[in-house]
Amino acid sequence: MSNNIIKFEKYFRHLSFIIKIEGRKALKDYPDMTKAMFEILQLIYFNKNLKAKDIASNLDISRPAVSEILAKLEKGNYIEKTKNINDKRVTYFLLTKKGKKVINSVIKSRVNFIKSIFNENEIEILTNIFNELLNRQNKIDKK
Amino acid sequence: MSNNIIKFEKYFRHLSFIIKIEGRKALKDYPDMTKAMFEILQLIYFNKNLKAKDIASNLDISRPAVSEILAKLEKGNYIEKTKNINDKRVTYFLLTKKGKKVINSVIKSRVNFIKSIFNENEIEILTNIFNELLNRQNKIDKK
Repeated sequence: MSNNIIKFEKYFRHLSFIIKIEGRKALKDYPDMTKAMFEILQLIYFNKNLKAKDIASNLDISRPAVSEILAKLEKGNYIEKTKNINDKRVTYFLLTKKGKKVINSVIKSRVNFIKSIFNENEIEILTNIFNELLNRQNKIDKK
Repeated sequence: MSNNIIKFEKYFRHLSFIIKIEGRKALKDYPDMTKAMFEILQLIYFNKNLKAKDIASNLDISRPAVSEILAKLEKGNYIEKTKNINDKRVTYFLLTKKGKKVINSVIKSRVNFIKSIFNENEIEILTNIFNELLNRQNKIDKK
């Protein structure tokens, strides 16, 4: 059993890595987008109401570095600033249509790669197992 | 079919993310280790003969930033410098015993988390599918 888990972790890690690489190939269509810019773009996409300081602590980089990358994302029209309704001193960030298009291109590229390496039957078995796992986890979270 | 792949990509991405978070919890035992330091430590562990400029281009960060992080890793006794036998002007990096211990702690933490969320039967099915996939890929690479 234990050996199988060690093997599984290794395979899963490898697969994660190659899917990530394939996904990011979609970024070639956005030559101004650096790795650091994409990391922050992703973070804003998947988390609501992020402030610059949350981004800094989440990615473990300095506030000035975050400000510089946010400015580049804004200049490239990938994100826009928005104010908190209750406290106008607080600035959040949102993805623009162009920013969302970048994320969707990367996801599409991941999906296409997955389609090219697994067969239908494998996808079905894997999806069922992951689905069941996430259901179990939701139940645990709600307890 | 297509819907299943989209679901699978999403589940896989989520699972990758939570396993990564759980793995990195092991880093609490190394409070001097920043996220950027760990990224570079990992890169050196999984790739032989990396030079500072390879690290910079791989992580898409500036050479001075890479040098600073490498100096911190060396100071913390996580990595050591080594010279190329054929060209003594070229410096590579290697993990020390302590550096390897960090990587192994993170992997162990990932393995323990996987063990806690999947059952034996699921691990076996997943491992078999991943194993078969990697065999197919190796065959393609060797063609």
